[in-house]
Amino acid sequence: MSATLLRLDPSRAQPSLEPMVQLVTGDMNMVNAVILSRMQSEIPLIPELAGHLIAGGGKRMRPMLTLASARLLSYTGTRHHRLAAAVEFIHTATLLHDDVVDGSDLRRGKRTANLIWGNPASVLVGDFLFSRSFELMVEDGSLKVLGILAGASAIIAEGEVNQLTAARRIDTPEERYLDIIGAKTAALFAAACRVAAVVAERPEAEELALDSYGRNLGIAFQLVDDAIDYVSDAGTMGKDAGDDFREGKATLPVILAYARSTGDDRIFWKAAIEGHRNRDEDFARAIELVRTTRAVDDTLARARHYGQRAIDALGIFANGKAKDAMIEAVEFAIARAY
Amino acid sequence: MSATLLRLDPSRAQPSLEPMVQLVTGDMNMVNAVILSRMQSEIPLIPELAGHLIAGGGKRMRPMLTLASARLLSYTGTRHHRLAAAVEFIHTATLLHDDVVDGSDLRRGKRTANLIWGNPASVLVGDFLFSRSFELMVEDGSLKVLGILAGASAIIAEGEVNQLTAARRIDTPEERYLDIIGAKTAALFAAACRVAAVVAERPEAEELALDSYGRNLGIAFQLVDDAIDYVSDAGTMGKDAGDDFREGKATLPVILAYARSTGDDRIFWKAAIEGHRNRDEDFARAIELVRTTRAVDDTLARARHYGQRAIDALGIFANGKAKDAMIEAVEFAIARAY
Repeated sequence: MSATLLRLDPSRAQPSLEPMVQLVTGDMNMVNAVILSRMQSEIPLIPELAGHLIAGGGKRMRPMLTLASARLLSYTGTRHHRLAAAVEFIHTATLLHDDVVDGSDLRRGKRTANLIWGNPASVLVGDFLFSRSFELMVEDGSLKVLGILAGASAIIAEGEVNQLTAARRIDTPEERYLDIIGAKTAALFAAACRVAAVVAERPEAEELALDSYGRNLGIAFQLVDDAIDYVSDAGTMGKDAGDDFREGKATLPVILAYARSTGDDRIFWKAAIEGHRNRDEDFARAIELVRTTRAVDDTLARARHYGQRAIDALGIFANGKAKDAMIEAVEFAIARAY
Repeated sequence: MSATLLRLDPSRAQPSLEPMVQLVTGDMNMVNAVILSRMQSEIPLIPELAGHLIAGGGKRMRPMLTLASARLLSYTGTRHHRLAAAVEFIHTATLLHDDVVDGSDLRRGKRTANLIWGNPASVLVGDFLFSRSFELMVEDGSLKVLGILAGASAIIAEGEVNQLTAARRIDTPEERYLDIIGAKTAALFAAACRVAAVVAERPEAEELALDSYGRNLGIAFQLVDDAIDYVSDAGTMGKDAGDDFREGKATLPVILAYARSTGDDRIFWKAAIEGHRNRDEDFARAIELVRTTRAVDDTLARARHYGQRAIDALGIFANGKAKDAMIEAVEFAIARAY
């Protein structure tokens, strides 16, 4: 038996999310049907605003993880369709509130809901989707599932507040940054995978393995997103490079570059994260600094570390198409930066 | 047996919430302990911001209704303490988001959280409290309770969006206004009362009776609040009279005054609700118009109608201190306007 290692050999074909998409196509159609039917309301603004984001070209990463995990466990029921929809509703509610909090005007290359319909509507429709997700879970009827997803929701909100209070603080330690992304991103990835083991009635060890897969994948995913903000252009991301920089977010590339800088460069980073250096030439300098300090390289090295842990967490499951797709999803998450 | 009728005889002592407060004092201490312990977080901003509102002099009306209803049913367990805390968390989350949506700067005579800590923090701490409320319900372990409160939460959010899309529309029909307050206020009053019957394991007829008591009391409560905005001063309400007017809310006093007006007065109302008449002399004219058209009197007549229905819903329960306190709470809700 040979260990499965991250295949990041540039000579090899680019890893893709396609095998996972293929694996769950039929199930995802069922999930989309639940999502469409349960975002309806007699108040027309609700499906209009929710539909803008839900139909807006997201990868459906989190519900896809629920479906892939269920497939890994050879689950043959249908409970995961409703729960995957609940997971997507939680995620959508979070995005709506995030864009209000950040004052964002672009997401996935489209104008944000708060820009089109205003902050009040985004806040309230987010609340609606969040409540609706709990209704879906109650219909499923498992207190265990409810506990996992209610717990994840509280951790997400806590992580968002933590991020808010860290905003524009260049002295954010790496540990705190990891706490934040562990809460705001990885907690829902973990819960999305874990609930599949609950509906499939598998032993706790498998629940925990899927939790670990999702959590580590989520951290890797966020680390790569944060690195891409310092390397990509709008074409590859659907968001503008430099957004995090201009919003003064102390992401890991910044934390590492600052820690490895001295003199004027430190003064520059502090001023930039506090909002006093947000012209294009400032961002160009930031890109140069994260390159010369190897801050982006090492952010991606951290991402590979968590990606490898995600893959190793799958070690207890039988090999097959589902496991292969889940491994390649990790490789895809990381390869986005290359 | 004589029917219990609303005692709104002005020669009688002013009805009071005090009997209900007394009835549940011991239980409320337990609820407050749950609230205090469960609003804690490692992120200091969370208890700081949540505490501002939770300790901020609210009447704890909704958890008090859960406790009084449990007392009415001679429930002797402790499950209602956790659920009453969950109800208060849902309510607090709603208030935090409401103040963001309305851009309010004063609540219960204190500066609002959004004014002190900003909109982003209010949105996110609201999300945290909302998630925490579901965690409390999951700990209680009743899917039936979860269904009632998740359903109420979705209805509240839907009602808030409905209200938002009716904002500044003078042509809001009375039916739509009743739908809005039925959702944004009465649904949680109803659920707060109803869950007491679930934990006390009482037959459905009693569940429905308590739901009806809460729902009708909630509508009466909101109608009186909306009337007070056109009669009171800041001293009696903890909010400034005229707030609804200046925010262009088409509450029932406005809807009735507009329907009963002609000519210049109609033009005035339309302009005012659309935001073009918000000086002090405009509000003085509005007060005069709601008086001469008897719009406030008839708003209060509607409130008495719902109040009477709330009292009649208690008819199936045995007489006693709890029932007397719950009846007087309805009378209190209405007497606030006199």
